[in-house]
Amino acid sequence: MEKKRILVVGLGLIGGSLAMALQGFEDYEVVGAVRSQSTWDKAAAMHAADRLTFDPAAELPGADVVVLCQDPAGIIDFLRDNRDKFKPGALVWDVCGVKTSIMAAAECLPDGVDFIGCHPMAGKEVSGIDNAEGTLFRNTHFIVTPGPKATAEHLALLHRMAEHCRFGDVIETTPERHDEMIAYTSQLMHVIAVSVCDNDELFSCMGFEGGSFRDCTRVAALDAAMWTQLFTLNAPALVKMVADLEGRIHQYRVAIENNDREGLNAMLSHASARKKQINLERARGDDVHPGF
Amino acid sequence: MEKKRILVVGLGLIGGSLAMALQGFEDYEVVGAVRSQSTWDKAAAMHAADRLTFDPAAELPGADVVVLCQDPAGIIDFLRDNRDKFKPGALVWDVCGVKTSIMAAAECLPDGVDFIGCHPMAGKEVSGIDNAEGTLFRNTHFIVTPGPKATAEHLALLHRMAEHCRFGDVIETTPERHDEMIAYTSQLMHVIAVSVCDNDELFSCMGFEGGSFRDCTRVAALDAAMWTQLFTLNAPALVKMVADLEGRIHQYRVAIENNDREGLNAMLSHASARKKQINLERARGDDVHPGF
Repeated sequence: MEKKRILVVGLGLIGGSLAMALQGFEDYEVVGAVRSQSTWDKAAAMHAADRLTFDPAAELPGADVVVLCQDPAGIIDFLRDNRDKFKPGALVWDVCGVKTSIMAAAECLPDGVDFIGCHPMAGKEVSGIDNAEGTLFRNTHFIVTPGPKATAEHLALLHRMAEHCRFGDVIETTPERHDEMIAYTSQLMHVIAVSVCDNDELFSCMGFEGGSFRDCTRVAALDAAMWTQLFTLNAPALVKMVADLEGRIHQYRVAIENNDREGLNAMLSHASARKKQINLERARGDDVHPGF
Repeated sequence: MEKKRILVVGLGLIGGSLAMALQGFEDYEVVGAVRSQSTWDKAAAMHAADRLTFDPAAELPGADVVVLCQDPAGIIDFLRDNRDKFKPGALVWDVCGVKTSIMAAAECLPDGVDFIGCHPMAGKEVSGIDNAEGTLFRNTHFIVTPGPKATAEHLALLHRMAEHCRFGDVIETTPERHDEMIAYTSQLMHVIAVSVCDNDELFSCMGFEGGSFRDCTRVAALDAAMWTQLFTLNAPALVKMVADLEGRIHQYRVAIENNDREGLNAMLSHASARKKQINLERARGDDVHPGF
């Protein structure tokens, strides 16, 4: 009996790591689709997949599972350009950091091809297959936004794949809720990091940085083209979060400027108590420590 | 011959850790001054100092080195209340996160008592002697702001103590420059962390946090009373930094809101290139990794 087949399209940091992590999953062969000879060579040397191809479209009719790991525009284009080539009954999922616009793009797929939006909450501040590793997803969140047509069978299959990759948990939500939450927990952190790094003092502050500076700015070394896509695809939710932060930061500035120690102490006590509370809730929780 | 004496006033996280780290330094005895019986008991059990006292003022005439580890107001009060009790020729240093106002307060000391402002760039998101450890300062920055009257002998002594505590390096600067830099690299990070934690979504976002959220908000669990002092004592420099950040964050919001992909991409490329550059400079540097 021929093996079933998982096609991973795009072997960058996430796609390469997923192709590695998915190897050995049940009776599936993992095929990795690359665009450049240099990625092919590296992927082959790392044995990033069971087999490599330059032509993902040609593999689609035989792929039982397709994992789209391109950048957001790449995923949207691929769905549109190849909508008729997917195998009937296939499960298609993606790894994009925004979900509403990806789910909308996936509506072009014919009935019988099941698209489930996914977002593995893992990453590094470096990209590319050179930095891929099969252990990247261990103990991180795997967020899933199934469409109304998602089958129970495919959801169960996705859960088994998540378990094989050693994700810490699988969180099911709607695309809209995902995008609101991600605007807050991830995109806003990137806006902050780049804004801090824009400051003129960045290059003169060496010797004065503590852990907080290093931690806060870590993600500023981002892929500008990809984050431009992620930010603009999630503009409504992100704009709301950034405006909210502007307002809160401004309140602190006013209190400091006015030497309003009582007000400042009250604001700091409130925020600090919230943070201590969430730390406690996390400690009581399922102990998932999202990847760095 | 009687041993020389280092008096550490205040055995919290930093003072307790310093008292531990300084033990065994040359021919000095380390005396730790505490205020509560509970800190005394813990300090005794941890052997945080060679000897403990409830009465730091009584120790001052015999102390060759005095290390002030109270909160900022506590340091300022202590200097004012005990200015005539310090041993002539003593070296006095502190650990406060702002330096201009501490240096100004130290001007009340008589000639012959040498005050050198210090800031060990180490910490934890928890406080108190329970969390103190002698290894806290390993490979972190030790910032020193000597006054005009600081003697070469005392500076050399301070360098030897820093080495004994295994600091990564000693950075010498002016109080004003320290306060500008620290407003950027530390205080602003705390303003950001509490502002993010003020958001209504804090308690609903569990399952959606990645490493960037955890890292950025880590320091929000702060000591509100102490940070109120630190912020207001450094108001001019901090207000400038917060206003600068507000402006930069606002520019990102405008670009996202206007779907200005070209502008956004240019801004993100610029910031990301700066961050990558500073990472390179750090990697080429002295390899000091500030403590978490």
